Amino acid sequence: MSNKKEIRIGLIGTGLMGRTHSNGYKRIGDFFPELEYRPVLKAVCSRNEEKVRAFAEQWGYESVETDWKKIIERNDIDAVDICTPNDTHAEIAIAAAAAGKMILCEKPLARTLEEAKTMVDAIEKADVKNTVWYNYRRVPAVTLAKQIVDSGKLGRIFHYRANFLQDWTINPDVPQGGAATWRLDVDAAGSGVTGDLLAHCIDTAMWINGGIKDVSAVTETFIKERVHQGSGQIQKVGIDDACIFHCHFDNGSLGLFESTRYARGHKALYTFEINGEHASIRWDLHDLNRLEFFDHNDESIVRGWRSILVTDGDQPYMKRWWIPGTSIGYEHSFIHQAADFFESLQTGKPCQPTFKDAYETQKVCEAVLDSAASKSWKDTGVIWEGN
Amino acid sequence: MSNKKEIRIGLIGTGLMGRTHSNGYKRIGDFFPELEYRPVLKAVCSRNEEKVRAFAEQWGYESVETDWKKIIERNDIDAVDICTPNDTHAEIAIAAAAAGKMILCEKPLARTLEEAKTMVDAIEKADVKNTVWYNYRRVPAVTLAKQIVDSGKLGRIFHYRANFLQDWTINPDVPQGGAATWRLDVDAAGSGVTGDLLAHCIDTAMWINGGIKDVSAVTETFIKERVHQGSGQIQKVGIDDACIFHCHFDNGSLGLFESTRYARGHKALYTFEINGEHASIRWDLHDLNRLEFFDHNDESIVRGWRSILVTDGDQPYMKRWWIPGTSIGYEHSFIHQAADFFESLQTGKPCQPTFKDAYETQKVCEAVLDSAASKSWKDTGVIWEGN
Amino acid sequence: MSNKKEIRIGLIGTGLMGRTHSNGYKRIGDFFPELEYRPVLKAVCSRNEEKVRAFAEQWGYESVETDWKKIIERNDIDAVDICTPNDTHAEIAIAAAAAGKMILCEKPLARTLEEAKTMVDAIEKADVKNTVWYNYRRVPAVTLAKQIVDSGKLGRIFHYRANFLQDWTINPDVPQGGAATWRLDVDAAGSGVTGDLLAHCIDTAMWINGGIKDVSAVTETFIKERVHQGSGQIQKVGIDDACIFHCHFDNGSLGLFESTRYARGHKALYTFEINGEHASIRWDLHDLNRLEFFDHNDESIVRGWRSILVTDGDQPYMKRWWIPGTSIGYEHSFIHQAADFFESLQTGKPCQPTFKDAYETQKVCEAVLDSAASKSWKDTGVIWEGN
Amino acid sequence: MSNKKEIRIGLIGTGLMGRTHSNGYKRIGDFFPELEYRPVLKAVCSRNEEKVRAFAEQWGYESVETDWKKIIERNDIDAVDICTPNDTHAEIAIAAAAAGKMILCEKPLARTLEEAKTMVDAIEKADVKNTVWYNYRRVPAVTLAKQIVDSGKLGRIFHYRANFLQDWTINPDVPQGGAATWRLDVDAAGSGVTGDLLAHCIDTAMWINGGIKDVSAVTETFIKERVHQGSGQIQKVGIDDACIFHCHFDNGSLGLFESTRYARGHKALYTFEINGEHASIRWDLHDLNRLEFFDHNDESIVRGWRSILVTDGDQPYMKRWWIPGTSIGYEHSFIHQAADFFESLQTGKPCQPTFKDAYETQKVCEAVLDSAASKSWKDTGVIWEGN
Repeated sequence: MSNKKEIRIGLIGTGLMGRTHSNGYKRIGDFFPELEYRPVLKAVCSRNEEKVRAFAEQWGYESVETDWKKIIERNDIDAVDICTPNDTHAEIAIAAAAAGKMILCEKPLARTLEEAKTMVDAIEKADVKNTVWYNYRRVPAVTLAKQIVDSGKLGRIFHYRANFLQDWTINPDVPQGGAATWRLDVDAAGSGVTGDLLAHCIDTAMWINGGIKDVSAVTETFIKERVHQGSGQIQKVGIDDACIFHCHFDNGSLGLFESTRYARGHKALYTFEINGEHASIRWDLHDLNRLEFFDHNDESIVRGWRSILVTDGDQPYMKRWWIPGTSIGYEHSFIHQAADFFESLQTGKPCQPTFKDAYETQKVCEAVLDSAASKSWKDTGVIWEGN
Repeated sequence: MSNKKEIRIGLIGTGLMGRTHSNGYKRIGDFFPELEYRPVLKAVCSRNEEKVRAFAEQWGYESVETDWKKIIERNDIDAVDICTPNDTHAEIAIAAAAAGKMILCEKPLARTLEEAKTMVDAIEKADVKNTVWYNYRRVPAVTLAKQIVDSGKLGRIFHYRANFLQDWTINPDVPQGGAATWRLDVDAAGSGVTGDLLAHCIDTAMWINGGIKDVSAVTETFIKERVHQGSGQIQKVGIDDACIFHCHFDNGSLGLFESTRYARGHKALYTFEINGEHASIRWDLHDLNRLEFFDHNDESIVRGWRSILVTDGDQPYMKRWWIPGTSIGYEHSFIHQAADFFESLQTGKPCQPTFKDAYETQKVCEAVLDSAASKSWKDTGVIWEGN
Repeated sequence: MSNKKEIRIGLIGTGLMGRTHSNGYKRIGDFFPELEYRPVLKAVCSRNEEKVRAFAEQWGYESVETDWKKIIERNDIDAVDICTPNDTHAEIAIAAAAAGKMILCEKPLARTLEEAKTMVDAIEKADVKNTVWYNYRRVPAVTLAKQIVDSGKLGRIFHYRANFLQDWTINPDVPQGGAATWRLDVDAAGSGVTGDLLAHCIDTAMWINGGIKDVSAVTETFIKERVHQGSGQIQKVGIDDACIFHCHFDNGSLGLFESTRYARGHKALYTFEINGEHASIRWDLHDLNRLEFFDHNDESIVRGWRSILVTDGDQPYMKRWWIPGTSIGYEHSFIHQAADFFESLQTGKPCQPTFKDAYETQKVCEAVLDSAASKSWKDTGVIWEGN
Repeated sequence: MSNKKEIRIGLIGTGLMGRTHSNGYKRIGDFFPELEYRPVLKAVCSRNEEKVRAFAEQWGYESVETDWKKIIERNDIDAVDICTPNDTHAEIAIAAAAAGKMILCEKPLARTLEEAKTMVDAIEKADVKNTVWYNYRRVPAVTLAKQIVDSGKLGRIFHYRANFLQDWTINPDVPQGGAATWRLDVDAAGSGVTGDLLAHCIDTAMWINGGIKDVSAVTETFIKERVHQGSGQIQKVGIDDACIFHCHFDNGSLGLFESTRYARGHKALYTFEINGEHASIRWDLHDLNRLEFFDHNDESIVRGWRSILVTDGDQPYMKRWWIPGTSIGYEHSFIHQAADFFESLQTGKPCQPTFKDAYETQKVCEAVLDSAASKSWKDTGVIWEGN
């Protein structure tokens, strides 16, 4: 492997995403052996020194930092991977860009559109490689869905609907704030399900079906007060527990999106369905190796929804893995994105979604929250070029 | 059977609903033998004499009429069943009420809330027995869903979502107007999917989850012009091809509803799902004998969505039919409603949904269409007592 | 209806099958209006006078008998429908044939191959119209499966597998013998699951895939003793609680069949699957309106099992019923067979399966039981012409 | 990591299993960080030098060999992992045992029972650590199934059924012999689906449900001749393309097993179902994160098969991975087995299935093939202690 070009990674944040990204980097060599670039796990950063040392030992990072600014300053870091809570994305990304680092940022890009704008400006000014971890694009069945739509099999699109349903915050004793539950703290997260879950749905939707033009939304906060982990006080909950919106896409189709953390029985049910003139598609994260496809061109008496097991070598990414019929899991979407990022360094093409693409998604999130607050339709201002 | 009290039916309309209702009446004796009342198929009415004679012969009606007013005038008719296009419901129902007939009216009650109001006024003034054929309440799995919610198993309800997806009008050559396609003609139908399909979803939703307070909707007409069967001319399409709305229920839960006739691959996919604090429920008309149920109180390592095959004698209506494991179909919901209507004559209790209940559903439909037209939230004014 | 030719039915037996057959006759006029013949429910027979009178009143039979021989003797009966326990099929059928009656016999034809032979001989000698109620052939999805295989879409067949799983006899307190539980009494039933359930699977299998040549079987009686309803005594259980066999079909494919009444969680799970060179098919009674179909000729990246909702007018029997997407149930298979029997009177063609066809199925059942008893392979001697 | 005890692996064979095992070793550190032992990828062996060098580079093996005997001879190898075709398992394992190496052997243990016996003898004589890669035991849902049965939730077991269906050899142009298709060459493989696929089903079955006592089988070779990759000649096919058997378990339950490579539409459909007095379980490799469970003790009106998404931290192995609702894949079963092997070095307990356990599975395979050849029941002689 000596003749591979090394990209020295500085990972900031050691939570769930710190783990999925680290795993992504470590699998590239085994499954994408032809890549000219290879990641080196140079440093990992987290405020708690004991924890970050344990993380580094477990995952094989060469060094640790407890102040993210050190990561930016170090000359032996080529790429900064931002896995911290949302309220730090902008500051870190802007500093990293100024330092000329490549940036791989966990989604959502930022808490607000305004923050996101400062990040895009910084990236563009610095002209550094970047990508945002909207990982579900790289689930093979989702990538295949995109292929099918692009092939024209669906014809004119009439409907796009998606939801992302969870149930982990129903218990009122779940606190807000802190390492495990910052996603419930509006200061850290910016928003609730809109930025955390709907942002994924919006990214996939615009990638496959084009820009979202305007939205009409409703949000709800079912549990109004929770203990804050930091202060220990009972505080008002500022995030959206649930969000529903409908919208128009640029292509004239109607969109429908829903997300909640109060759907008892669903852990991470991200599903989408697209209805076109000639065919339809649907997908479900709980059964992620399958894509369902209905083709009206099939002979009428044997026409039906096809359950496609996306595990064959001619389907996206699957020649990398095992044999037909054997499934892969959630973590593989991150491996694929890591590999695609490294491939983009070879080809010179952007690794989508870039900060610019994620900024467009942020526009929709902002419009959704504005719409819910004002109880009115909002234009998004999206200019979608992210395909 | 000589000691049964006869209810002489006058059926107006010989389309699909004329058939399902007739089948409902004819099955009661075989499957609800203990009922004290029995229907007599006294007369059927349709404008085309040849067709109405064939229908009468096929289904065993004793006589035919080609003018519905004759049905109202006849002294040998006790109950009028209205299966005509929506634009005639009000006139017929008001005349029937004035004549003191019992009335069984196909849904939606009317084209508009205003029309519906005149019908409710007429019924109340005449004090006649009445029901509206929102048949899906009587699918055993749906009735069981209601039982489960009423039992308190779900606890506080957070979400109710329903959709009704079809695909039969995608072809632009499908005309509007006429006997088979009056549902596409706004003059005959009043609205598109809102009155035809969402009205079902709204009726079920309010029956199970209580009143809908306010709504925010969007509608779309994908194919703007179609040939009119009557005039032979290409005319503007006035109906809503698709409609999506979100709403608040009186109990604080969020609702989400979608209907379209442009969802390729779905013939009559009516589904609903209810998420509560402790448990969730979902149902699908394409697999109507099943109810899915998730109970968070189950032991954690073996917790999962249960697929309940609703075919046992202790489940709603099923002691009437065959043996555990053997399914029933779409038509049985009408048989059950017919039987329940006849039972209501014994008990003196109303056979829900009554005109009054259906009027509340109409309020939601009207608010939905108003909301879509004005691009704003609308209060429904619903006062729900229909449980 | 006056110009229809009447077939006066004498029904013997008022259990579940008495009800399904009666329902079959009564629906023909409504759903097969073009048939030249029509059934008249002339008489019903059962030993308990009170019960048979109630049955007659409920279902509309004109008269009752308590001795089946009276049914045979009556000149106003054209067709005898045998719905009694298996131990009486032969005697009744032979008498009915001798009297020149048409015969519709519930399956299995008889308790033993020897009994069945006497029945076929009697039928052939008398040359009377006959059919055996292997009703599942007339589930539209099953009929469609036959069409698909006959069309050649599967190519060479490699595998046929079927099972019929129930769970209603797990409780050791379920008695044997008597009106409700004669199926557990070997004297009345002849065998357990082999004659009751596997006979259905075998009939469907040979109809679709041709003759079964030889078999190797195992049976088990899990609960060795049960109270007999008649004697009130605990007696040895003589039936097979479970039966599994594998076999060769004449066409070289391998067959696999299993049935049990000890499969907790399955009420009436009759499924079959056929694997051919180019395509495969599977079906499940618990979801009887669907047929699953895999076509290897589909484009590889979008190839998958299709879930065909068999509810369209161009699919078998479905133009008789409602609209696309609306399901039918278990009872409809009997309605279809009744209608096909009446149509066969017009066309002069046999209404399959005839006694002769059912006799071939009986050969397989007998070989299966012989194989299990002797722990060896048995040739069936089947000569299949029943397609 | 310096204080971990190193186990230096010598991998023999670089096919699919060489990859899955290598991946297993490489993931242990990241996901089982507490293990005291850690694997070192010391050497990999394959006859083709170019290919083995590429494999070593891709997977990070420190050195290569082209003669497996060198692996055995090397003093810097602690554990030999045998991933070669079946015809070499015995020779390698016996040599490795003689050299005192730990052995991890791919299944099936050997081509024949006789070969397997020599391997068990060698292992026992040398008293070396050993395991056989029947990986499906370590799919979390399968491990959970074992837990549920062991907990007594099912009560008395009546039925166990399993199948393993593939479709990759339907094309007669698929050759036999050679690197990719040695599984079709009886000399290399020993048998067809029996050793390759049914061996998995048998291992799982005996692990969960105890010993198999006797069997009655049928096998078929659908395509009688194929080109041999080695000779280039058309040769008779010696393997079983398909195998079906039924059996008795020691606990009195009936077993049913089927495997084929001619089931069009199924890539790797390994399913099993267990029916007990009180509850039933089923599982499907194509949806490997789910376990279905039916509990008759549930309240009757809401009783149904539960679809358990096995992704929570209290379910087997899942605390190692991501968050509830996020799935893992096929490869994880090998990671789990590798981790369990290393843990067994700490605990001193065997890592099941051991060679001894796999030898019992081999007895069933041998009895199955004997039964099919002789068309008679065969006792297996299994003495099952492998739980």
